Amino acid sequence: DLPLTLIAGPCQLETRQHAFDMAGSLKDIASKLGISLIYKTSYDKANRTSLGGKRGAGLETALPIFADIKKDLGLPVLTDVHTEEQCAIVGEVVDILQIPAFLCRQTDLLIAAAATGKVVNIKKGQFLAPWDMKNVVAKVTESGNANVLTTERGVSFGYNTLVSDMRALPVLREIGAPVIFDATHSVQQPGGQGGSTGGERRHVETLARAAVAVGVAGVFIETHQNPDHAPSDGPNMVPLDKLPALMERLMAFDALAKG
Amino acid sequence: DLPLTLIAGPCQLETRQHAFDMAGSLKDIASKLGISLIYKTSYDKANRTSLGGKRGAGLETALPIFADIKKDLGLPVLTDVHTEEQCAIVGEVVDILQIPAFLCRQTDLLIAAAATGKVVNIKKGQFLAPWDMKNVVAKVTESGNANVLTTERGVSFGYNTLVSDMRALPVLREIGAPVIFDATHSVQQPGGQGGSTGGERRHVETLARAAVAVGVAGVFIETHQNPDHAPSDGPNMVPLDKLPALMERLMAFDALAKG
Amino acid sequence: DLPLTLIAGPCQLETRQHAFDMAGSLKDIASKLGISLIYKTSYDKANRTSLGGKRGAGLETALPIFADIKKDLGLPVLTDVHTEEQCAIVGEVVDILQIPAFLCRQTDLLIAAAATGKVVNIKKGQFLAPWDMKNVVAKVTESGNANVLTTERGVSFGYNTLVSDMRALPVLREIGAPVIFDATHSVQQPGGQGGSTGGERRHVETLARAAVAVGVAGVFIETHQNPDHAPSDGPNMVPLDKLPALMERLMAFDALAKG
Amino acid sequence: DLPLTLIAGPCQLETRQHAFDMAGSLKDIASKLGISLIYKTSYDKANRTSLGGKRGAGLETALPIFADIKKDLGLPVLTDVHTEEQCAIVGEVVDILQIPAFLCRQTDLLIAAAATGKVVNIKKGQFLAPWDMKNVVAKVTESGNANVLTTERGVSFGYNTLVSDMRALPVLREIGAPVIFDATHSVQQPGGQGGSTGGERRHVETLARAAVAVGVAGVFIETHQNPDHAPSDGPNMVPLDKLPALMERLMAFDALAKG
Repeated sequence: DLPLTLIAGPCQLETRQHAFDMAGSLKDIASKLGISLIYKTSYDKANRTSLGGKRGAGLETALPIFADIKKDLGLPVLTDVHTEEQCAIVGEVVDILQIPAFLCRQTDLLIAAAATGKVVNIKKGQFLAPWDMKNVVAKVTESGNANVLTTERGVSFGYNTLVSDMRALPVLREIGAPVIFDATHSVQQPGGQGGSTGGERRHVETLARAAVAVGVAGVFIETHQNPDHAPSDGPNMVPLDKLPALMERLMAFDALAKG
Repeated sequence: DLPLTLIAGPCQLETRQHAFDMAGSLKDIASKLGISLIYKTSYDKANRTSLGGKRGAGLETALPIFADIKKDLGLPVLTDVHTEEQCAIVGEVVDILQIPAFLCRQTDLLIAAAATGKVVNIKKGQFLAPWDMKNVVAKVTESGNANVLTTERGVSFGYNTLVSDMRALPVLREIGAPVIFDATHSVQQPGGQGGSTGGERRHVETLARAAVAVGVAGVFIETHQNPDHAPSDGPNMVPLDKLPALMERLMAFDALAKG
Repeated sequence: DLPLTLIAGPCQLETRQHAFDMAGSLKDIASKLGISLIYKTSYDKANRTSLGGKRGAGLETALPIFADIKKDLGLPVLTDVHTEEQCAIVGEVVDILQIPAFLCRQTDLLIAAAATGKVVNIKKGQFLAPWDMKNVVAKVTESGNANVLTTERGVSFGYNTLVSDMRALPVLREIGAPVIFDATHSVQQPGGQGGSTGGERRHVETLARAAVAVGVAGVFIETHQNPDHAPSDGPNMVPLDKLPALMERLMAFDALAKG
Repeated sequence: DLPLTLIAGPCQLETRQHAFDMAGSLKDIASKLGISLIYKTSYDKANRTSLGGKRGAGLETALPIFADIKKDLGLPVLTDVHTEEQCAIVGEVVDILQIPAFLCRQTDLLIAAAATGKVVNIKKGQFLAPWDMKNVVAKVTESGNANVLTTERGVSFGYNTLVSDMRALPVLREIGAPVIFDATHSVQQPGGQGGSTGGERRHVETLARAAVAVGVAGVFIETHQNPDHAPSDGPNMVPLDKLPALMERLMAFDALAKG
């Protein structure tokens, strides 16, 4: 059992400068804490609640920035893909291709992601039982790519609410792939703000502590220097200046869980 | 309020002969009953539970068959699309493009479907509240296509189960688009058979009667001459020979509901 | 299959005069419609959301009123019981003892209700699957009383929400006891108004139509001449002057469902 | 923040000898671990799934045994009450009266329990949102008894399943009463074995670790020297010989959570 990995970054890529600021700050935090860091950001928010939601910088803008973050800061980069075509292009640059939860059963997307040979992080659909991820993971591994991560990010619970079933973590682990807990999207209230999605940031630590105590390979935490002005998922993101203390607590729980 | 429309056909396109047999039989049934019929079939099952699930005949094979069903039998045809690229191609032939429930928030897919000018039938995601479909429908209408249908097909209820909330039907109707009730997928038990999805055919009529009594524009019922040997969704499909009596009952409820 | 029965009345007994006014009006309505009527009212609301909620007139006040409604108006009376001791006392007067949903698994209460020899109407708990009512019903029948009704009144769906699963109706029917659909409490939003319970009256007809089309022995509808000033369940009760037209529609669906 | 308390014992009182054996063993375990122990057992299982389920020793048999466990072993005792009458009687002997989850909104029971002046532990109903417990707790505190505990034991999630929402723990804590996590009943599968209730013992530690990491005043864990032969809740109980190591791990998480 390796120590906890941190997958972190802003929900979406805003500008080159912002990306470098965030990645640089996160690298400093991770280095002081002695934790492995994977930089996460999205170049396109393909399933916003409404047409008016900000989509992101786009693939052409993003890829050179991702490449430079990797080269200049030495950070592995994770981003999400939404179509088969994107997989090969994105796979040229990033280290981890992430399959969005809504798309976790789209066979062609999984096969195309698998074909890149990169790590594939599959978010568990809000509509899936944890044991159903076995078939989902197999779509990648049986396509010849054993480098799979699974991510728990909550399951539908009535309307406009998710719940995090901590029993899902050991069930996912039995599938064989390392398990990530996404503490950001697990506190979403889908559609809960009418034209956009709400959330309860105060529960990020609640759920992250629970998951780390149960035992996970990594936590996924979106962060922003000013979440309330972020273009998406602001209600769920942790302010950057709160991240070091939060991670320190999580790392202590992780050491105990794996000790 | 127009009388009930029937959207029916086998879950997936098997062969040209099978498609013509099914479409022909359905046309006879609809004609005897005096009900409008839209022929439904899928050329690709893009999100099967596992990699081993049968995918379907494919787009190239299917389109000429769809065209011939339209030409020879005079039936409007509905099929589902999974990528932006498919929209324009499929839109050349079919009358109604259907957005699968898992993909109902994929903005680019909705915009591409809208751009065809054809009717777009959006299935409500298993993870969505009915009022959240307002934003989803607007992605199509604000893209310049007012020809939208919405389809209720159940909402996540614990693991491996869906529940049909009949209150969703009037809530969807208030959005402004005609509402279809999908009696086939509403009785699915997602992932409930391990490597495939189960269901309870006996509840198709239960739910369809309830929905028609509440008031819907149409019902969506997959059917097959031998469901237990169908390549997908067999446990949920109505045997073809049971369809006429079922529809007769539903039409009586529809007349009363709209009378 | 007998025609639909109506179980109706105000949520709680307010005064003798109010009870006779309501019962008299309901008798007139039922007589004009030609429908069997059971008068329902509660003498005690034993599980209000908060301590400040109005409890009701109490057993001693209520029983003579129930007796006079039976004698003077010739109406069968249903009320709910909360303790073993109440069963024998209430059973002296009323025709149907109703077991509240929260109490549906309390063995001693069920046995005491069974011992009265009166009809026992068991509301399905919000936490129960329909098939689990088999064991609940057996607690009464195996105690020697075969006169059991079961009532569907919604199942927990996330927080502060219930959903009505129409599949529950045939599942309950297979247990062997007549099935009632409670259209009032099915639209409750438990705890949804902070110190009291909310609801959506507009969905009473939605759900009642659905249930009657599926097929039930009776509907349970709380009504009040002025629901917004009723001491409990106001948001869910149907105004008395809307009841005749609502019942006429439900009776037409019932005739079709059973025809 | 006081260190974690352990509430433990067999699900139901079997015999005087068994009770003393269990209580003695638990006292030794707690003493070695340096953890506060409250002995829990039920004299009556008033809401078994079916009539055939074992009910327990009964009040008259149980009270002298409870009194002797208190006197001879010096352990505080917790048991559950089901009627108003039981409260005063049980309150003469035991230290903590527990309100079963199904009964958590029964006003008279809460008032009667409050009147004993003993600590009242209210289990949150499977049908309640955590914030709704504020009104429930107030029924006791406004009756003049400030000694209240609340217990989280899972919320309905589809049929025959509960889910533990870890966000409930801080929400309950804000109400002001110490919060207990019931790791035994949270893994129940209500009605999941037909005539009895199932469960998944392997998830007791999963959920208990999560809850303790989030922060609770105590854990409630039913235990038995031979759970698979226990008269109730066997599938959820922890074997007695596994308890010391489990508690040691939980105490380490507790120290970290409160440190």
